Amino acid sequence: MTKRKAPDIVVGRLPMYLRMLNQLIDEARQTTSSQELGERLGISAAQIRKDLSYFGGFGKYGAGYDVAYLRDQLRRILHLEQVWPVALVGAGDLGHALTNYHGFSQRGFEIAAVFDNDSQRIGQMMGGLKVLDVDEMEQFIHKHNIKIAIIAVPVVAAQVVADKLVAAGVIGLLNYAPVPLKVPDYVTVQNIDPVARLQHMAFYVGQKAKSESAAT
Amino acid sequence: MTKRKAPDIVVGRLPMYLRMLNQLIDEARQTTSSQELGERLGISAAQIRKDLSYFGGFGKYGAGYDVAYLRDQLRRILHLEQVWPVALVGAGDLGHALTNYHGFSQRGFEIAAVFDNDSQRIGQMMGGLKVLDVDEMEQFIHKHNIKIAIIAVPVVAAQVVADKLVAAGVIGLLNYAPVPLKVPDYVTVQNIDPVARLQHMAFYVGQKAKSESAAT
Repeated sequence: MTKRKAPDIVVGRLPMYLRMLNQLIDEARQTTSSQELGERLGISAAQIRKDLSYFGGFGKYGAGYDVAYLRDQLRRILHLEQVWPVALVGAGDLGHALTNYHGFSQRGFEIAAVFDNDSQRIGQMMGGLKVLDVDEMEQFIHKHNIKIAIIAVPVVAAQVVADKLVAAGVIGLLNYAPVPLKVPDYVTVQNIDPVARLQHMAFYVGQKAKSESAAT
Repeated sequence: MTKRKAPDIVVGRLPMYLRMLNQLIDEARQTTSSQELGERLGISAAQIRKDLSYFGGFGKYGAGYDVAYLRDQLRRILHLEQVWPVALVGAGDLGHALTNYHGFSQRGFEIAAVFDNDSQRIGQMMGGLKVLDVDEMEQFIHKHNIKIAIIAVPVVAAQVVADKLVAAGVIGLLNYAPVPLKVPDYVTVQNIDPVARLQHMAFYVGQKAKSESAAT
């Protein structure tokens, strides 16, 4: 059987499956099924089976999935058997929240350094790290072979920061600035824009609110 | 022509189109094309035309799109002609970053109140708002007819907070806690989990990093 290339949207669901499998392990569960995963995640069992089929056969027909085995396979597929060092650029409120967030390390990532260009912030401690001058960023990234960075700077600075990161060797960017970044094809960008998510939601909330007010 | 129901993934792209159209308006542009939008956003022109076709015909054949008209139509489709008041639950670092983020109001949302259960935080000022006791939350939401809330509390509190919000009448949740929420079908949830986005990215970054090291 030749494996087909998984669409990006399928790849994007794997972290959710991984999180649920880790939760099942915490519950001391040894096996699960696409039905159970689907019910817990609000996705159809058929969709889950189809998604996983892009990466191989992980269950015995009728016997379901071995939780630990499937978890380990997803970690391998997502390249999470290592801990990825991450550069964080921007030491404002958002950067502060990110350095104090304890969810990274168990899930494959570690903030290795925080950079800012504000002399008031440089040298301050943040989540156990000293904020470094952004002028040291390229050298630091080279030296520590960092491939992934988080951009938590204002909109006007985001593209300049992205260009520097890419020039230094970063090939994955998590971008909190609500602006599309221009990067070479080999660089992967994930954008976090809470307002876009609220706008997406407003499509449905507005429909529902309208039908409610029409009904009263 | 009967309009087909737009898939959720298409709805999710509309905020990106809206943002780009606003940018074109800032550049004093009057018309654009699916080609230009596609190039700027890194999406195919055909995909953009197909996405928009779910909601009507917005361009004259060969003449492209009127920027302001298309922008206004997208705002109408997304129910953004009003400003939605939003309840923010959680006044930690992340809540702080969100209350100080100035991108909400121009794009259709306004944080109307911030709630926390920590007596150290209640009564503090945050982004011009006094942090309120979470015990006042349900009454406040009823009184101000709030339909949308942001959950920025620790994982262990997220489901309890979601239950209270839904009971009070909220039908749209933007969830920053990295845990899936159980809500009734009529409630829309958008999850923001930066680690899931990093894991999604690691799929590609790991492939690229591997091929780089194999080549050297």
